[in-house]
Amino acid sequence: MSNESNAYWTVRSYPDGEISAANFELLAAPVPEPGQGEVLVKTTHLVVSPPLRMALGTGGIAGKPLPLGSLMRGSGQGRVVASKHADFKEGDLVAGPFGWQQYAVTDGKQPIPLQKVKPFGDLPVTANLHVMGSGGATAFIGLFDYGKPSAGDTVVVSAAAGNVGSIVCQLAKLAGCRVVGIAGSEEKCRWLTGSLGVDGAINYKSEKVSDALGRHCPDGVDVYFDNVGGKTLDAVLDRINFGARVVLCGATSQYEGDSQWYGPSKYFNLVYKQATMQGFYIFNFQSRFPQIFARLQALIEEGKLTYAEDQMQGVGSLPDALVKVLSGANFGTQLVNLDV
Amino acid sequence: MSNESNAYWTVRSYPDGEISAANFELLAAPVPEPGQGEVLVKTTHLVVSPPLRMALGTGGIAGKPLPLGSLMRGSGQGRVVASKHADFKEGDLVAGPFGWQQYAVTDGKQPIPLQKVKPFGDLPVTANLHVMGSGGATAFIGLFDYGKPSAGDTVVVSAAAGNVGSIVCQLAKLAGCRVVGIAGSEEKCRWLTGSLGVDGAINYKSEKVSDALGRHCPDGVDVYFDNVGGKTLDAVLDRINFGARVVLCGATSQYEGDSQWYGPSKYFNLVYKQATMQGFYIFNFQSRFPQIFARLQALIEEGKLTYAEDQMQGVGSLPDALVKVLSGANFGTQLVNLDV
Repeated sequence: MSNESNAYWTVRSYPDGEISAANFELLAAPVPEPGQGEVLVKTTHLVVSPPLRMALGTGGIAGKPLPLGSLMRGSGQGRVVASKHADFKEGDLVAGPFGWQQYAVTDGKQPIPLQKVKPFGDLPVTANLHVMGSGGATAFIGLFDYGKPSAGDTVVVSAAAGNVGSIVCQLAKLAGCRVVGIAGSEEKCRWLTGSLGVDGAINYKSEKVSDALGRHCPDGVDVYFDNVGGKTLDAVLDRINFGARVVLCGATSQYEGDSQWYGPSKYFNLVYKQATMQGFYIFNFQSRFPQIFARLQALIEEGKLTYAEDQMQGVGSLPDALVKVLSGANFGTQLVNLDV
Repeated sequence: MSNESNAYWTVRSYPDGEISAANFELLAAPVPEPGQGEVLVKTTHLVVSPPLRMALGTGGIAGKPLPLGSLMRGSGQGRVVASKHADFKEGDLVAGPFGWQQYAVTDGKQPIPLQKVKPFGDLPVTANLHVMGSGGATAFIGLFDYGKPSAGDTVVVSAAAGNVGSIVCQLAKLAGCRVVGIAGSEEKCRWLTGSLGVDGAINYKSEKVSDALGRHCPDGVDVYFDNVGGKTLDAVLDRINFGARVVLCGATSQYEGDSQWYGPSKYFNLVYKQATMQGFYIFNFQSRFPQIFARLQALIEEGKLTYAEDQMQGVGSLPDALVKVLSGANFGTQLVNLDV
């Protein structure tokens, strides 16, 4: 180990509005040695998703930013390369919040338990970072436990081509719903209607969401799976049906910028429509993950569920990957492959 | 009838911001004659509540304002003074949306069914306009069906000294909750803590609600019954506990003014706290009203539930009554007695 170095990204500065790669600093240190009861993990893949933006401060809703100079946070997969821990041995594939670095030392407990990773059937092991991981579980629990779709319902999904949104769209179609997805490019919209079988797709960058919703949802909206917040949430609230369920999952439109978050000014339609707006924390449902993953795996193997991965290469590309997902330029779950 | 006149208020102009009596015009016409299948009602009491403000236009959430020159809307009680309707006879006490006028003609169907009014036990008949009416039912359904309080929960109620809020406070205390009320005067706060047995009262006109909530709710908020919206809703959302229930009932702070409503910028705490925000339409629960009213009547007769009425006298005082309730200067349900 001793003649290799560990490249890692720290928080150099807080953005004034939109984030840029210059807000991070790439440093290097000797690869750390695991102490008694610890393991050394070589990171293979990190997931880069919009909520990471909040590590650099945002509008006062999501706690304090990381202190300047801290290791940037992030989760992913890695391989145990040295172990002084009874439960892990060299070569084990593991998942955890390793941070933006090539190597991580952990006692397997902090900050969250280190998990061994086994691929599902013939799926690539990286699927455990999205469809066969918390993203897939979030889509499943959010749609079925909170969205409670009935056949024939109109389901609207924002960030519909993303990790969670794309699974929600497909599960809702399988449940017999009419599904309308909102995404940020023509290519994504074509993927939604072409490959995922969604009934309608709205490119929010080229048309006004409220107008397009009127066209795509003539009978109103029964379930809204919200990954973006902001004025899109308002536009959907304006069209909810009696008894509608608004499932809050993400607020991508609000993570950039340090001002107060945009609150949904149409929230009072929840009263007029006797409707519900709910959030949930996916890790409270962990006991159901095995059952959910078995179902998702079966759907994938039957060709009824698909997903997309967007990989960038090398530890150096991590900041660019975050800028990319915040602009919506990624296609599918954004991964960075560090095993290069 | 023919030598009496019917005084009535029309909408003269839309307010630019806060409403004033000058936005209404008092006119008079001959008392109308009921046609075949119709009754003539002499209005005895009208309820004047903040949502009436929306009849004159507000921020684009609650539909179109009444056209200029229209009879101002409003609901209350009256006495049948002439009937050509098989189901109603002279002297019947009835309730309905008679509008701001001394006499109303109705076919008993439009715009909503005319209802016969019977006092509950020894309660004044005007109690049917609040605690033994939709206000009491709203408090009961909102708190129990949507707030789902458990003994020991902290329940926060805004407009706590109002028609609905004061009943919610007392029902929550009876359910073993810790109750904190938010109201707009020292007198109301004293009534809440003194007569209603509420654990803490916050005068939002003299202290910052967010600071006061920190003091009064050291263990967070499990149920919030919201009658006001605006920044008070944000202040409470900022302190909700895991699994909290936010019950949307009114948005008094938002009815004045024609700009966009203030959306709760802290709504995303519903995600972090796996919490629910819900609205409901009380008239969907009408089949349960008899059972609810029996329970409320028993509580009143046992001395466990009280209420306050604020009466103004004469048809001429209707606009002033609306200005009064919007400023929060009323104490209890605002009625206008037209039977003078």
